[in-house]
Amino acid sequence: MKHFRWFLEVASDSEINMHALDEVLHSSKSEYQKVEIFRLGKFGKALILDGKMQSAEVDEFIYHECLVHPVLLSHGSPKKVLIAGGGEGATIREVLRWPTVEKVYMVDLDEEVVNACKRLMPEWHRGAFEDGRVKVIYDDARRFIRTSKERFDAIILDLPEPMEEGPAILLYTEEFYREVGEHLEEGGVMVTQATTVSVVNFRAFSIISNTIREVFKIVRPYWTSVPSFYQPWGFVFASQQKDPKALQLEEIEEKLSGLKGQLRFYNSEIHYALFALPEYLKEALQKEKAINRDDSPLSFY
Amino acid sequence: MKHFRWFLEVASDSEINMHALDEVLHSSKSEYQKVEIFRLGKFGKALILDGKMQSAEVDEFIYHECLVHPVLLSHGSPKKVLIAGGGEGATIREVLRWPTVEKVYMVDLDEEVVNACKRLMPEWHRGAFEDGRVKVIYDDARRFIRTSKERFDAIILDLPEPMEEGPAILLYTEEFYREVGEHLEEGGVMVTQATTVSVVNFRAFSIISNTIREVFKIVRPYWTSVPSFYQPWGFVFASQQKDPKALQLEEIEEKLSGLKGQLRFYNSEIHYALFALPEYLKEALQKEKAINRDDSPLSFY
Amino acid sequence: MKHFRWFLEVASDSEINMHALDEVLHSSKSEYQKVEIFRLGKFGKALILDGKMQSAEVDEFIYHECLVHPVLLSHGSPKKVLIAGGGEGATIREVLRWPTVEKVYMVDLDEEVVNACKRLMPEWHRGAFEDGRVKVIYDDARRFIRTSKERFDAIILDLPEPMEEGPAILLYTEEFYREVGEHLEEGGVMVTQATTVSVVNFRAFSIISNTIREVFKIVRPYWTSVPSFYQPWGFVFASQQKDPKALQLEEIEEKLSGLKGQLRFYNSEIHYALFALPEYLKEALQKEKAINRDDSPLSFY
Amino acid sequence: MKHFRWFLEVASDSEINMHALDEVLHSSKSEYQKVEIFRLGKFGKALILDGKMQSAEVDEFIYHECLVHPVLLSHGSPKKVLIAGGGEGATIREVLRWPTVEKVYMVDLDEEVVNACKRLMPEWHRGAFEDGRVKVIYDDARRFIRTSKERFDAIILDLPEPMEEGPAILLYTEEFYREVGEHLEEGGVMVTQATTVSVVNFRAFSIISNTIREVFKIVRPYWTSVPSFYQPWGFVFASQQKDPKALQLEEIEEKLSGLKGQLRFYNSEIHYALFALPEYLKEALQKEKAINRDDSPLSFY
Repeated sequence: MKHFRWFLEVASDSEINMHALDEVLHSSKSEYQKVEIFRLGKFGKALILDGKMQSAEVDEFIYHECLVHPVLLSHGSPKKVLIAGGGEGATIREVLRWPTVEKVYMVDLDEEVVNACKRLMPEWHRGAFEDGRVKVIYDDARRFIRTSKERFDAIILDLPEPMEEGPAILLYTEEFYREVGEHLEEGGVMVTQATTVSVVNFRAFSIISNTIREVFKIVRPYWTSVPSFYQPWGFVFASQQKDPKALQLEEIEEKLSGLKGQLRFYNSEIHYALFALPEYLKEALQKEKAINRDDSPLSFY
Repeated sequence: MKHFRWFLEVASDSEINMHALDEVLHSSKSEYQKVEIFRLGKFGKALILDGKMQSAEVDEFIYHECLVHPVLLSHGSPKKVLIAGGGEGATIREVLRWPTVEKVYMVDLDEEVVNACKRLMPEWHRGAFEDGRVKVIYDDARRFIRTSKERFDAIILDLPEPMEEGPAILLYTEEFYREVGEHLEEGGVMVTQATTVSVVNFRAFSIISNTIREVFKIVRPYWTSVPSFYQPWGFVFASQQKDPKALQLEEIEEKLSGLKGQLRFYNSEIHYALFALPEYLKEALQKEKAINRDDSPLSFY
Repeated sequence: MKHFRWFLEVASDSEINMHALDEVLHSSKSEYQKVEIFRLGKFGKALILDGKMQSAEVDEFIYHECLVHPVLLSHGSPKKVLIAGGGEGATIREVLRWPTVEKVYMVDLDEEVVNACKRLMPEWHRGAFEDGRVKVIYDDARRFIRTSKERFDAIILDLPEPMEEGPAILLYTEEFYREVGEHLEEGGVMVTQATTVSVVNFRAFSIISNTIREVFKIVRPYWTSVPSFYQPWGFVFASQQKDPKALQLEEIEEKLSGLKGQLRFYNSEIHYALFALPEYLKEALQKEKAINRDDSPLSFY
Repeated sequence: MKHFRWFLEVASDSEINMHALDEVLHSSKSEYQKVEIFRLGKFGKALILDGKMQSAEVDEFIYHECLVHPVLLSHGSPKKVLIAGGGEGATIREVLRWPTVEKVYMVDLDEEVVNACKRLMPEWHRGAFEDGRVKVIYDDARRFIRTSKERFDAIILDLPEPMEEGPAILLYTEEFYREVGEHLEEGGVMVTQATTVSVVNFRAFSIISNTIREVFKIVRPYWTSVPSFYQPWGFVFASQQKDPKALQLEEIEEKLSGLKGQLRFYNSEIHYALFALPEYLKEALQKEKAINRDDSPLSFY
């Protein structure tokens, strides 16, 4: 055994992922959570909150491109974008590729996380926090949205998992999605990260998807594989008017070619592929009856 | 910690996957390898050869459907199929769904593996070994193909990884693929499993793909996510005439609707999605120059 | 990493001992506990109850010689001996070395454990169960002692740890030790295993010792190191008349030379060494005020 | 699982000890080795060199008292003491308890280790480095001893394990012990740490002991249990005239009562207990024929 320091990510009672812990770049306890930045074997730097991997240097681009571009492509010409969460700054980075974007608000609860990311994870944000279009607000995303007078072309929910005593437990409920819907402009679009979607663990994904269906007319659950998460990862797109599956190939390619910089994962083929759901999952989504509400919010772990 | 017996799958020097080892159903050392069947936490029964997970009860259907149906769909009406490897019997099971199939040869080196699977893993084969169309041969796949007088509509390479002293080291070389090509009928098709294809580990996949390009006109690398493998998994399709990406939607749906039994992963949308390659991987495949040859075969671990 | 199956013994929240799990010889769930016999790396066969190592092939002789011989030496000529627990049969084996012994009762709760040990662990009992002087009773040790009409020269408490819902929780209390005392002959002696006695974990040991002091005039806590337990191990000797520390060298050597077979750990120097307590522990024992009683029995884990 | 960062100490191919890694206080690569100071679960701070635990906050006193006091007691009134190794400063600390001591040389190869210990491990040295009697020299201990013009009352070898490419490989050989012997005053004494002495692993201990017997008339191997080392630990005392086993009780108690400060482990009973060897080990020591020499020095791992 070459390495003797390890990070053990507990995926469940019966699955643990061990990563060689090459370096502890940051370790602190913020007001809200345990905040750590590790250097981990092949995955490079990684942000760990309360022992859960948030994103890793080598493949954060997969997660962030798949979170941002489907929703902005569906809108077509987003001007005002709101990001809830997104402390690493990589979600802002992807949003700023869009030349139509004029204003990006990022609302993150934990200033300590954002500051650690700014200082130690420049590979993620690449200066995005300094862009004049960006405004960072340290607040609870739910409170911010509820009390905001503004409306947005796109709202991107880049949140931690809904854990019992975690800060995001009320950011996956029907009531919250209604508040999100009320703060979208005409033709507005939203997306949320939607946890693991593995063959042994798709319940949270299907409940989130079903809950969003209570609020929005067009709901498109989708998924891809982020190697450092080990299990396939889910997202849910929603809108009252726009449908990412209805986009024409030419339209996608034209929009993507207008983006600033080079995408590393996303392209027009990938766009369609993301929305292809396997049979077992289509069935599970159809059968799902549970709706996640504020009065007894589901905690998925 | 609820569990105290664990299976540690060493993915690399710096990544280890721990699975609760609920039951040891079988453990022996065959002539060729260490053969074990474990019951593992959420993944259920699993076949482990030399410490490497081969397939797990809960998601073997993903791997096996994605291995078999793209290649048989591309052929359209396969009659004679050869499987190299495939000891669990699940590859035969998927092949036998095709009503046109008249003969399936499965050539596996290790009778001890096949017997253990037959006895302890009925969830995989579901009686497939008893089907009158099936013939199992215990032999080295390379030797069998080279000396065979027969030709096949489809050859499916369901092999263990190419490891230095492993039995499959010479089953990923240009010379072998030529022998495979020479044993295909007109309009014949082949597919091989092609190891991990993660953002930190795609070299083996791209070399296999590039090597096959030396022999076949149409080569289609593809990938999906098998949760129990933890990392995305690659395959390479090849043919002189047939192209899975050129299939029409109606054609796919018609063929799939004619299959026996219910698919759990595969469908027409998934068919196209499998062949969508991310940007970083398209680039890697284009740049790859290495060709895997008998005289210094690559060993990927 | 050469091995991929491991037994993880959880010593505490923050210490886990990993042993290569070479073979699962037995695994069942009895009426009382999870019963397993593993072959473990350098330690050979081992009995594991509810995930806790009970004794290992290579060094069980240390534990069993140190449990049995101090108490029998102190008595001098034991005829009737009662063992509570001791399922492996090695405690009987050591008792039977004494030529004066005429009758050994072993009271163990769990017949399934004893049967598994008889069948799979002959290196421990070496035929002791077949000796005509031995009588095995399957019963709760406390119930057996309380209701027994007999008295014994020595009572040896070879018990599992006192765990909250475990079968031994009431076998370390003042009330139980009184019942033990009432079943000793004039000049009778007792000993109990007394859990870990490490510098970071000596509280259980000192409470057991202090509790026994409520009942017996002469109480001698002692300890040694059993490698497979990883931490030093404690025992407590007690009697109304006999004192192992007062034994003369010649007396010890004479008695030991009369024993059947060859001791592998114990000798006269070791006898005295066992009772040498380090300063920090003498101090801890003196300060201990807690007494373990039936109404709120301590559970040490 | 409460903790997710762990230190894995590889004890052998088949045994690994996991400690919760509460804090990384220091991590660097010196000219000679990987140097780390961790805070580890119940064991508190610990010095780790090349992945091997050297000593831990909660029980270093056991190791250091047992290393220093037997040898100095045997001498009786040490004035000049040489320590080889001993980077943590705790060996100096114990030596300085002796009121007769006038001069302590400590020769350690790795200044980076000593500086890290000075700064981060004051619980070990407790200011000992500042004592006017102490002189620290950064040099290879072998070279220093060989070329020194001085002689010492006691030489204490507080060294890392003899590992193949480690700095201590030539500090356990007959030739080295001769050089040590030549630098002792009349009535001089030496001691060396002598690695693990477990029932499954006593070969190194018995070879070291046998090698020293080639050079010194009186050789006393001894052992105790240091919980953070998990396995019992060995030492070897040697002298041409003095014998620690021949010391009278009164003499020991008088000397110990004259020491500065409070001992936490050592006392007169412990003194005798340390030298009590179990039967299996006495036999192994008698049978040992191997002698460790410079031309093919044993590497014990």
